Amino acid sequence: MEYQILDTTTVVAYVLNNAETASHFRDPLSVKAREIGDGNLNLVFILQSETFPQEALIVKQAVPYLRVVGESWPLSRERMRFEAQALMLYEQLAPGLAPKVFAYEEAMSIVVMEYLIEHQVMRQPLVARQKFPLFAEHLSTFLANVLFKTSDLYLTGLAKKDLQSRFINPHLCKIQEDFVFSNPYMESPENKHNPLITDEVSAVRQNVELKLAIANLKEKFMTQGQALIHSDLHTGSIMVNPADTRIIDPEFSFFGPMGYDIGAVMSNLMMNYMSHFAHTADAEQREAHQGYLLDTMRSLWNLFAFKFDALWVRANTGELVPELYWQFEGGEQAFARYRERYIRQILRDTFGLGACESLRRMMGLVTVWDVGSIENAEARASVERRIIRVSTRWILEHESFMSVEDALRIVTEEV
Amino acid sequence: MEYQILDTTTVVAYVLNNAETASHFRDPLSVKAREIGDGNLNLVFILQSETFPQEALIVKQAVPYLRVVGESWPLSRERMRFEAQALMLYEQLAPGLAPKVFAYEEAMSIVVMEYLIEHQVMRQPLVARQKFPLFAEHLSTFLANVLFKTSDLYLTGLAKKDLQSRFINPHLCKIQEDFVFSNPYMESPENKHNPLITDEVSAVRQNVELKLAIANLKEKFMTQGQALIHSDLHTGSIMVNPADTRIIDPEFSFFGPMGYDIGAVMSNLMMNYMSHFAHTADAEQREAHQGYLLDTMRSLWNLFAFKFDALWVRANTGELVPELYWQFEGGEQAFARYRERYIRQILRDTFGLGACESLRRMMGLVTVWDVGSIENAEARASVERRIIRVSTRWILEHESFMSVEDALRIVTEEV
Repeated sequence: MEYQILDTTTVVAYVLNNAETASHFRDPLSVKAREIGDGNLNLVFILQSETFPQEALIVKQAVPYLRVVGESWPLSRERMRFEAQALMLYEQLAPGLAPKVFAYEEAMSIVVMEYLIEHQVMRQPLVARQKFPLFAEHLSTFLANVLFKTSDLYLTGLAKKDLQSRFINPHLCKIQEDFVFSNPYMESPENKHNPLITDEVSAVRQNVELKLAIANLKEKFMTQGQALIHSDLHTGSIMVNPADTRIIDPEFSFFGPMGYDIGAVMSNLMMNYMSHFAHTADAEQREAHQGYLLDTMRSLWNLFAFKFDALWVRANTGELVPELYWQFEGGEQAFARYRERYIRQILRDTFGLGACESLRRMMGLVTVWDVGSIENAEARASVERRIIRVSTRWILEHESFMSVEDALRIVTEEV
Repeated sequence: MEYQILDTTTVVAYVLNNAETASHFRDPLSVKAREIGDGNLNLVFILQSETFPQEALIVKQAVPYLRVVGESWPLSRERMRFEAQALMLYEQLAPGLAPKVFAYEEAMSIVVMEYLIEHQVMRQPLVARQKFPLFAEHLSTFLANVLFKTSDLYLTGLAKKDLQSRFINPHLCKIQEDFVFSNPYMESPENKHNPLITDEVSAVRQNVELKLAIANLKEKFMTQGQALIHSDLHTGSIMVNPADTRIIDPEFSFFGPMGYDIGAVMSNLMMNYMSHFAHTADAEQREAHQGYLLDTMRSLWNLFAFKFDALWVRANTGELVPELYWQFEGGEQAFARYRERYIRQILRDTFGLGACESLRRMMGLVTVWDVGSIENAEARASVERRIIRVSTRWILEHESFMSVEDALRIVTEEV
């Protein structure tokens, strides 16, 4: 149908008019909608049956402008296509780790998907020191499968380039390019920071080695089409409960460097770690939670690396380096060395790229709730300084990292 | 019109039916066509007036299969679109350095272009020790302009990704991926080499460090969308005379690493250099020509680097690193350091990627005429061994190169 912006009335009609989505409700007349979008980008409706409240769906619709600003900031509705394509691909490559898509209509920029009634967005429970013991296991499965299976290590050159051509996403890439890799480190009107850390912010903006390294990382982000990345994988894009983990909101998806996704998670866990110096006064409680976070980061990397390598050994079907290339005396060890070096480079990219995510949160357009919710400005500044120190060292030192311990050691050294 | 394969009769009618192309001929009835394609990929016709022989055009048409093999090897006709797009872009970005395009019809996979009546393909005159004193000057202008102005250093993110999306060229990329970066270094049925160098070929195929480095270079080729590259810029894709230089045959064009184009030229000049140990018995003549080739390589790099840097300083309009990013005390020097490091990385990529081009010519599907035309198998083997040694060292050592002298020194050490 022709594009029109839905409201809480028309969205119900829309869903009930489609046999596929209507079939989720035994009592169609009881379906009510409410809008729950955070208002940044999209309309998000929950449709729920009043008779059978377990029957519920999410409808997400893109509007043709940046919602947080208004119609004066146009933004292509195409982002919903990237989100739908990515979610459907996740279901193929890493089943059960994203919400199921029940319908997608390109003309309407609408995705109808599973309502995760028993999950919560991960960021706030982490501030409340909740633990998710299966998170590293689940997320590493997601990352290893999606990244490996959309890369030249698994796909033929033709299949990879075909997939890549369906994820050319310049408008949303530009948001990350500007707001993660450039504007926070220079004068830009939207930048904000805690006045107490002005000295540290100025030091970052004048640190030549740091800015040269960030420029190189930005080039990697802009030019290295290594695999399909989510490209906004912070702890607000992950829904969890103790038993289950789901990746949401992949509208920024495009073919970029693998490390960016793993790094976004790592740097958000690191920011949460530091935020507890303010949130959690009790040293024992704080140390227990921080220990859990370090263990999670360590497990996330080690499980990712293990699973990525195992997938590669099991299905070395890509054309980047054909199997035959390693068929010579000693070739098996050479292939093992190649995998080891390749995965080590992902590790380095993870902390280099990821650190730009945490650094920008201290001095750019938006902070993270973990830190922004610290009301005492001094306490907040003290957390922010720690995050700036870790991020700076990750950026300056990542190319020498040999294992995840090199990154974690910096976290514990900069408390 | 609907696609049909042209012959020497129908091609004349095609050109005369189009007012734009017909206008090149004062005496249409005198126009005759002959087919001059080398038979690998496309039909290439020269249309020339018998009354006014200066009036001539080239018509290039893609057939839907690999012509050298036949209809059993299908190959997308889309390659002619990439060639036409690239030639038209060259005319905008580096005027006068490619043949002019007079007409392009996508449905017919046809480009009608300028006939370079006073030029010759560069490869054979170089074997005959001809010199082209303006070549480095012209080619460096071409490379600096095309590479800079299609990169994120000059274009906005949106403009660059839009252009990139028009050059997704998986079929022709696959030819280079397979035949430059993989197959020559493993068992593959199409590989050929001089039986006298079997030991050296085996050594390459079992050299673990070398193969790891080639795998990294291949990843760069497959994933780094840095700028629009020609991607087949050997000395057979360049037409020259003492006064003028033109780049032809850009059907392999796509967004890849800048160094691949410069490196293809460098490695072909290096192969020509080595070939004269067989072609030119007279030591004085040989050394003079080899000196000319080294000077050309040196000038090509130095002029390229100088012009690329000058373009960048003059038009730092890209979004990779905005001008404002360098606006702080000491920022000007920081920007200079960034440019220096960026260009040094292009230098390293040039010799790393370029060396794969020369190495594969010794043991893959096709040699180069410079070497293949050496009839004496011993003399040829001696040339080939030198080329293998230089290529191997370029691949293993390129990441430590600080200037073009580091690459040229290896050439003179491996004679």
